[in-house]
Parts: sequence; C-alpha cells; structure tokens
Amino acid sequence: MLIPFDALVAKIAALFRANGCTDPVAAVLADNCAGAERDGCKSHGLFRIPGYVASLRCGWVDGAARPRIEVSAPGLIRVDGANGFAQPALAEVRARAAATARSQGIVLVAIRNAHHFSALAPDVEPFAEDGLLAIAMVNSNCEVAPFGGRKAVFGTDPMAFAAPRSGHPPLVFDQATSVVANGEVRLAARRGEDLAPGTGIDRAGNPTGDPKAILDGGALLPFAGHKGNALLIMIEILCAAIGGGRFSHEIDRTGFESGQTANTGQTLIVIDPTAGGGALPDFVGRVESLLSAAREAGQERFPGDRRLACRRDSYSRGIEVSQETMDSIEALSQTDPARSHAR
Amino acid sequence: MLIPFDALVAKIAALFRANGCTDPVAAVLADNCAGAERDGCKSHGLFRIPGYVASLRCGWVDGAARPRIEVSAPGLIRVDGANGFAQPALAEVRARAAATARSQGIVLVAIRNAHHFSALAPDVEPFAEDGLLAIAMVNSNCEVAPFGGRKAVFGTDPMAFAAPRSGHPPLVFDQATSVVANGEVRLAARRGEDLAPGTGIDRAGNPTGDPKAILDGGALLPFAGHKGNALLIMIEILCAAIGGGRFSHEIDRTGFESGQTANTGQTLIVIDPTAGGGALPDFVGRVESLLSAAREAGQERFPGDRRLACRRDSYSRGIEVSQETMDSIEALSQTDPARSHAR
Repeated sequence: MLIPFDALVAKIAALFRANGCTDPVAAVLADNCAGAERDGCKSHGLFRIPGYVASLRCGWVDGAARPRIEVSAPGLIRVDGANGFAQPALAEVRARAAATARSQGIVLVAIRNAHHFSALAPDVEPFAEDGLLAIAMVNSNCEVAPFGGRKAVFGTDPMAFAAPRSGHPPLVFDQATSVVANGEVRLAARRGEDLAPGTGIDRAGNPTGDPKAILDGGALLPFAGHKGNALLIMIEILCAAIGGGRFSHEIDRTGFESGQTANTGQTLIVIDPTAGGGALPDFVGRVESLLSAAREAGQERFPGDRRLACRRDSYSRGIEVSQETMDSIEALSQTDPARSHAR
Repeated sequence: MLIPFDALVAKIAALFRANGCTDPVAAVLADNCAGAERDGCKSHGLFRIPGYVASLRCGWVDGAARPRIEVSAPGLIRVDGANGFAQPALAEVRARAAATARSQGIVLVAIRNAHHFSALAPDVEPFAEDGLLAIAMVNSNCEVAPFGGRKAVFGTDPMAFAAPRSGHPPLVFDQATSVVANGEVRLAARRGEDLAPGTGIDRAGNPTGDPKAILDGGALLPFAGHKGNALLIMIEILCAAIGGGRFSHEIDRTGFESGQTANTGQTLIVIDPTAGGGALPDFVGRVESLLSAAREAGQERFPGDRRLACRRDSYSRGIEVSQETMDSIEALSQTDPARSHAR
C-alpha cells in the first residue's frame, strides 16, 4: 500500500490523540514518526508505534505535558519536559534557541525529564535549513555495556549533526554510539539473522553477535571500543548532568512496566557560524569545498544521502506501508478502554 | 636518565627560544611538550621536537607570532593565530573563554591560522580543573582518507573532552578520529611492527596494516568506518569553516617543504554546567555517580587513568629520557646558523 506523506501524518496524529496526546503533541510526534518512515529510517518510524502507545497507556509518559523553559544564562536554556515527549519540548524552544544562537553565536539547550523515542536527525535538520549548525545528543534506554564491562550502563546515546549547504538540503548525520542502534538489533532478531561478532555481549558478559542474546539480558557494546566508550561518557554527562535529566542507568520503570520510552536528557548545541561576520563570509561555500574534496578522493556516499533519496521517492510515489501495519495503526487508534475508564 | 619535570621544561624552553620563539611562546610549548612526556603520551612529547624545530627553522611557523582576538558575538570568540602555534594563542584567550562560559553558560573559541602539533588533552584539562566542561577539536595534517575513498582528505582530527570530578583530577579523553593517531603509525614503522589490517590504505587505495605503506603515499582510515567518517566531516567543519582556518586538504607547504606542523583551525566549546543555578546543584556528584555505575558494571580503566598514573610516577621518580634524546635536544638547542644568517 502506498500512502501520501500527509495522509500518513494525519493517521498517526489521530492515533496519538486517541492515546492521550494533546493536539500539538500529536502533531509534532506524527510529523516526526511519519517523517522517519518517509526517510527510510524504518527502525524509528511506524515500527515504534506500539512502544509509544504502550508507554502512553500505562501512564509512563504524559501526552499532555506542558514543558517549562528556563533561561539559566544568556547562552544556556534548560527545559523541563514535564515527563512528556522530547520533540514537543524542543518544538516549544526551537525559535528561541535559533534566535539565541544568532545573537550569542552559540546556545546550549538542555532538556530534562523528557522521553526521546525517535531519530535525532529531525531535531537538527531544521536548524541547518535556517543556516545554523546544530549538534544534538540524547541518552537513551540502558542497553550498552561500558568497554570491558559486563552489563548495560549507558544508552545507545546517538549524536546527530547538521550543517547548511549551498543549493542542497543540509548535510545531516545521526548515529548511535553503540556498534548498532537498538532498532537494528530488534529487526535482526525478528528476521532471525545474526549481527557481526562483538556487536554486544550475552547475559554472562561474553561477546556475541546473536541479537536474541543481546536483547535477553545482554547488552550492546560501544562502537570502536574505548573510543566509543569515551564518547558515551561524554554524551551521558552532556545530556543528563547539565540539564538535570536521568542517566540511562537511572531509568526506573517500577509501576510502569509496559513503558518502553526513555525518560532521560537531551542536549542541543546550536551555532551561528556567521555570527558577527568575521573571518569567513562564505560558510556554506566552505562546506561545499570540503565535500567536493572528499568526493574527488573517491567517497561516493555522504551522510544523509540515502535519507534524502528515500524522501524524494516517498514524496513522488507515496510511502509503502503493509496492510498489517495499517491494521495495527487502526487498532491502536481506538481509544483504550482501560485508560478511558481510569479517567 | 631520570629528569625532574621542571628541569625538562627548562631545557625544552631553551630549545624553543634558540629556534626563534619568544619567551612566552617557548614557555607554553615547553610546558606542553614536557607535560606530554610526563603523562606517558610519548607520541606527542619529545618525539615531536625535531618536527617543531624543522618547522620553525624553515619559517613555516612563526615562533614570535602575536595572536589577535576578535569577539564576534557574546558567546563566540575568533582568534587569528597569526601563523604561530595554537597553544600560545589558546593561552592568550583562556581566561576570557572561562569568564565568558561562566557569564554566558557556553562559549565557542575558534582559532584559525595556527599550528597544533601536540596532544589536545592539555587544552581542555585546565578548564575542568576550574569546574567547567570543555570539548576541543583540531583538524590536522592531511593523512586520513574518507570512508570508501582512495586518498587522504581529512586530518586525524582528534577530539578531547574534560569534565570536573569530585575529589579527583578531571576526567579527560583525547582521541584521534582515525583508527590510530599518526604518531602511532610512525612509532610502529620505526619498530618494524604491523598495525591491525584496515588501519589504513596503501598508495593504490588497498586496505593495509603496514605502517610504511600508510606513510608512503597511503592514508589512515576513519575509526568505525562511516561513523568515524561522519565525525571527521563534523570536526573539519567546526574547526576550519567557523573560524576561517584551513581544511586539512588545503595545507600547502610549497616553499616550506621541511615544515611538519599543520596550519589549520581549532575549536573549543567551554560550558559552565552550573550556570544560572537551575536544575542540578551537584554537577560533579552526578559525574561521580555515572562513573561508579560503569565501575560496578565491570569497567576497570577510565579515560585518562593511564595518563594520571604516568604523571604521578613522573613527579615522584622523574621522567625517563634516553641519552640519545637528550643529546638531540642539546644539538637542536644550538642556534641555527642558517636562520641567524637570514636575520
């Protein structure tokens, strides 16, 4: 089944509204979720809907949360996500963050007490569409063991970056700091395929590429061993310790066992590379010249290329969604009787 | 031969002065170079002295440069290193950067037209000793091929991070974004040892672990494949394109062929995690709790542990330096006749 982007957004927004989200929260999440599917980022698109719904229905995340913004210093904005989703909290603070980056040169936004359950690319891309640089990090569910360790302490803790280009959509990367992202482990387990040896450890702490062993009491490992481990420590500190969010290992679902989203911290650093004029007038031209040099050296694929190709395809042909997935969205869009009763 | 730290600093400072550095530049570089040796970071210590001297003697780098500081916006400081070394430029701007981080919450310092030829850890550690977080990046000599490419475009482009701890020296990491640092390739070549397969490519673009093939027209590769490649693109953009420095592939030594240092860009982001009070009073306590959790999960070595152990040892026993190295320092401390003549 091929569905136009807008129609898919509308369907998912209805699902979120039926599960306790306010209109603006549902709109932001639907655009994000359908956008991931449109961009070919299947592990963060419709695949995540049952997890969103389960988390909302048990009360683990608040779909009606109203984030509170606190400007701690001219270049530092802390946001209390009020146990809602991170994307609507970011949507509230986005314009202020961009304006602050332009006036100050750089701004740090630290969101705490918020659930991030999607890709990070959509958080940074719009800043770069406005000519700004953005770096985003989020600490996520506790499922990555430290290098040399035997059990999970960190999240997969992705980092994303976006830079404006000249006559092109922004350059964007978004990557887990573990060997692979959690979604990839789940998809491999579902397909019955093994991952590369050393992708994770089993529950006894032995290296393994078996996705089921990783998911069943095991853990993922940092990419590039001690180097990825160092980045994980940095991301946990920047995300959770500056804004006041939870470290990945502090997430406690007691009483909300069916909750799947992670209530943690997210940090964005937004930079206006042209602030104050100064040394270099043609920032985007410089980015272009770097990419040309890499292309000339034989690099054929750049970060985000696949995503942009999928996006173009989705807009022209529609987004392919299976009947089974559409049925599941339909079923989960029925107001949950238990939750209605609780109200 | 075991030499006390201060005596080694004095010896190296004399060497730098004899090769055209002003007193303050010589002092900063000597402290940095002896400090790397003291901390067991041999690839960035005395090993680099011939490269420093060659670069100074041919006029590729200016040991008497006076950096110019330009505050482009309240949170953005650009520094023109005036073709001098990056460390003295950073020393000039350090106090202002720390003060700006405290008042603004975050500051970005972009140094252009400066030569960084040492480890990055010493650039970030002092900020964390003052309770601040610091991230530093520098793009370096052109010797890393893009993922899937056949020739060098990027530098090894290290990233360093420092965070304050409670009752401990700061947590510091400093790592090349290539599989290994250039110094490790040179040391392996000198020892006649192979590196892991896929550490780099030879001049034909084929994967290799032979350090001589990597150095002889080949290139290193990014760590973790496309993930490290994405970080390299980010670091080149943040270092060179914001401040107006050279990309690694733009370094041109025509007329200065014996120059070894890299005239590029360096970017530091310094954050006051407690700015404006706000969510979390006990920042360093939070860092400690994260590290405790990792230790409890079985992680035994943390970033910087080895460096701190070497440092303690060097202060108590002295720094071990071979007679051959001391002789070479002595010889290179003789004022260069060619250079004196040119003046």
